[in-house]
Amino acid sequence: MKFTLNEIHSIIGGKIIGDGDIVITGIASVEVAKEGDITFIRNDPLVPQALMSVASAIVTHREILQLKKPQIVIENPYLAFTKFMEVVAKERYMRQVGIHSTVIIGKEVSLGKDVSIGAHVVIEDGAKIGDRVAVYPNTFIGRESSIGDDSIIYANVSIRENVVIGKRAIIHCNSVIGDDGFGYLQIEKRHVKIPQVGIVEIGDDVEIGAMVTICRAALDATIIGNGVKIDNHSHIAHNVTIGDNAMLIAYAKIAGSTKIGKNVLIAEDVGITDHVSIGDNCIIGGGSNVYRSLKTGAVVWGSPAKPITEEKRIQILIKKLPEMYNAMKRLVKTSQ
Amino acid sequence: MKFTLNEIHSIIGGKIIGDGDIVITGIASVEVAKEGDITFIRNDPLVPQALMSVASAIVTHREILQLKKPQIVIENPYLAFTKFMEVVAKERYMRQVGIHSTVIIGKEVSLGKDVSIGAHVVIEDGAKIGDRVAVYPNTFIGRESSIGDDSIIYANVSIRENVVIGKRAIIHCNSVIGDDGFGYLQIEKRHVKIPQVGIVEIGDDVEIGAMVTICRAALDATIIGNGVKIDNHSHIAHNVTIGDNAMLIAYAKIAGSTKIGKNVLIAEDVGITDHVSIGDNCIIGGGSNVYRSLKTGAVVWGSPAKPITEEKRIQILIKKLPEMYNAMKRLVKTSQ
Amino acid sequence: MKFTLNEIHSIIGGKIIGDGDIVITGIASVEVAKEGDITFIRNDPLVPQALMSVASAIVTHREILQLKKPQIVIENPYLAFTKFMEVVAKERYMRQVGIHSTVIIGKEVSLGKDVSIGAHVVIEDGAKIGDRVAVYPNTFIGRESSIGDDSIIYANVSIRENVVIGKRAIIHCNSVIGDDGFGYLQIEKRHVKIPQVGIVEIGDDVEIGAMVTICRAALDATIIGNGVKIDNHSHIAHNVTIGDNAMLIAYAKIAGSTKIGKNVLIAEDVGITDHVSIGDNCIIGGGSNVYRSLKTGAVVWGSPAKPITEEKRIQILIKKLPEMYNAMKRLVKTSQ
Repeated sequence: MKFTLNEIHSIIGGKIIGDGDIVITGIASVEVAKEGDITFIRNDPLVPQALMSVASAIVTHREILQLKKPQIVIENPYLAFTKFMEVVAKERYMRQVGIHSTVIIGKEVSLGKDVSIGAHVVIEDGAKIGDRVAVYPNTFIGRESSIGDDSIIYANVSIRENVVIGKRAIIHCNSVIGDDGFGYLQIEKRHVKIPQVGIVEIGDDVEIGAMVTICRAALDATIIGNGVKIDNHSHIAHNVTIGDNAMLIAYAKIAGSTKIGKNVLIAEDVGITDHVSIGDNCIIGGGSNVYRSLKTGAVVWGSPAKPITEEKRIQILIKKLPEMYNAMKRLVKTSQ
Repeated sequence: MKFTLNEIHSIIGGKIIGDGDIVITGIASVEVAKEGDITFIRNDPLVPQALMSVASAIVTHREILQLKKPQIVIENPYLAFTKFMEVVAKERYMRQVGIHSTVIIGKEVSLGKDVSIGAHVVIEDGAKIGDRVAVYPNTFIGRESSIGDDSIIYANVSIRENVVIGKRAIIHCNSVIGDDGFGYLQIEKRHVKIPQVGIVEIGDDVEIGAMVTICRAALDATIIGNGVKIDNHSHIAHNVTIGDNAMLIAYAKIAGSTKIGKNVLIAEDVGITDHVSIGDNCIIGGGSNVYRSLKTGAVVWGSPAKPITEEKRIQILIKKLPEMYNAMKRLVKTSQ
Repeated sequence: MKFTLNEIHSIIGGKIIGDGDIVITGIASVEVAKEGDITFIRNDPLVPQALMSVASAIVTHREILQLKKPQIVIENPYLAFTKFMEVVAKERYMRQVGIHSTVIIGKEVSLGKDVSIGAHVVIEDGAKIGDRVAVYPNTFIGRESSIGDDSIIYANVSIRENVVIGKRAIIHCNSVIGDDGFGYLQIEKRHVKIPQVGIVEIGDDVEIGAMVTICRAALDATIIGNGVKIDNHSHIAHNVTIGDNAMLIAYAKIAGSTKIGKNVLIAEDVGITDHVSIGDNCIIGGGSNVYRSLKTGAVVWGSPAKPITEEKRIQILIKKLPEMYNAMKRLVKTSQ
């Protein structure tokens, strides 16, 4: 990468102080930035780090007079900096437009304009790929599935049949969308598979981490709303519905037919049982197991999940168990 | 899809009421079925939904007189309906027989009749693929591995060397069978790898979800019995044995050399430590961590896992800890 | 495989007793070894098994006089045996040197000598592959990434852009290195992606299991030290640092920016929260959730993690809760 500070300023805005013609060749945090790099600080406690840094330019929340180097001063430096990071990311990860000669395309496939389809991708019959979609190598897109405009599908992803993915989706490497839900009838002590003939519907602006599974419905649809973000290693079982803008941190385990409301925040490693309903705006603490429905705005933690103040109180008392046990023994002795 | 109701009746049986010549073009649950769809209800509480539905036909447990549309009446409507779902699934997911021109096949590979091998599949030397096996694109099958008749191996699966898979197996996308077990000797504070030269043996009628790992044994074999069902994101470590018809729900974590009995039911997100033995017919509740062997038929829950009635009692008492603590404080005060 | 006992002796050392010319055609544990196999025992309690075994030769810690078959006597039989297992593994899993005709190689890619690149591998522009590296089929290696000498990358692995991997790395099937970290700014109730423009740096002698994700840093680097071993289904979030020789057993969940010291042992299914620091030589028990930094050498267990003796005491007392509750009720009654 190679930008003048003036060019960066035109991307992120703010007020430029010092020489805007200097050339920036790297991007880094203030702890590790080297000469040639641009970095940023968010607030006053980080000013000493800025002063020690050898970075060539700093994006900062206020002018730092002692700093003898170019600065861009702007109200929200982190947000501003991410705008430049976005330009760097686009440059670094940009895929070449075109369809690699090794791509296998089925019958009646619809390909949008300016798509980038990497080597060894397989797109089966009737699939629809929107405009400017990028598909990394070795990914599989099954029959009749569709991917909305401006989406990025990384390498080794498997998208099975009849999956609908909205616009601006990002699906990271090795995820699986539309695998069979885990459903059996118990007939004479044997597990008889319930064929899974439903689909998966994913809204716009959804980001799905690496190693995520989203199972197709038994019947009907597993639904992921607009703006949902799902972190690595998560599992969305069949017939689940996830509301708009919900955020699921790593290893979210959502069992079958459960409904998650809008703007729900699910911290790392949370399990939610099947057939329950989680209201809008709920927050579920890390490592929780949720066995019941939650009302709108509930904040829970623990296993089983409890209101967070109750769980915190209980965690403190669990640590007092030895003290309680000893007190009890003394009381029993005294009372005899 | 397009079936007359008479055709569906010939698939699922029961008694047909009304016009058998109507054409069915979709399949859905009673909540979402549209005109043209067939749906089903299981019992009387669902009759009102059936009456409100605009589905074109309903499979039901008894004749519903007020319903002015064709019905198929049968004792177990869900089971009957799954027979039709199976036909739909076969039609929808059927793979074309043949070997794609991009498939790479090693030396001395044995291919059964009517196989369907998708694009970019790699089958290495000495592998054996049974009759009517379907392998989806981009899957890897290592040297000397074998897959039994009528199996389906989905996309981006990795099957390493010397893995034996029985008949009618289903292995979902991106799973890994036969990766090295995690074994080291500690020599002078370094981790020295124990080469993993054992194999994996999988019985008949086994279904393995997406993103599952089944490690090869250090020596000898990791064994998965007949009829075993393993859900997404599960991990079967080296030298584990899993008995016939065991069911492991998502994120089952079975550590090395552990033996799981027949018909064991392991709920979601259960960890079982290494070198223990779980008796036949045990049931292990969701989120449990099992650190000891379990006798036949044990029903446990919790972390560490305890008999389920004990665990339930303890969970209730943990919620009473604040009450207990306060009572205790009063007692201590009184006794002074 | 086919070795004379003399050949095996020359590999593992020790003292050979009996006929060194016998031919060994298999390798197995003492429980299952058949005629033609070589096996081993570690100590005296296993001597009866050795006596019952039909194995053709036994590696043992001392001469067993009653054993009427060839023996190799050596101080640490397991360690010695692993040397032979290593030879067997090399023979069994050896990849053919060469670049398969279906491999896609970008511009300015540097390939070392004697590499083995399997079918359908994709190596993008500017990547560097060291000497004697083996890459299994269907793996993706992104732009400007590099893999050190003598590494093995198994099938369906995805290595994204700018990932640096040291020498003698082993990366098992379907793992993902360098996917985007999960980072968003909350702007007006929407999740705005923080572009992830950092890298991943992996040291020498690192083994990474199947289905592992190691996320690229937002800025700077996610760092895995030398000699680190990471088991299946683990997740290393962005900007994490893992010290030399740390061992992470399956489902290790390390959240963003956390630092793990050297020689740390993390048992199965442990979660560690973001932005904490785990000192060198710490041991974290299975299923723990760590919410705070830990000092050098700490041994913790539980959720939340506590010093192990405290956690064990608490687990005992939790089982005594029914007894405590009843005693309490009696005391309250008596005191009234």
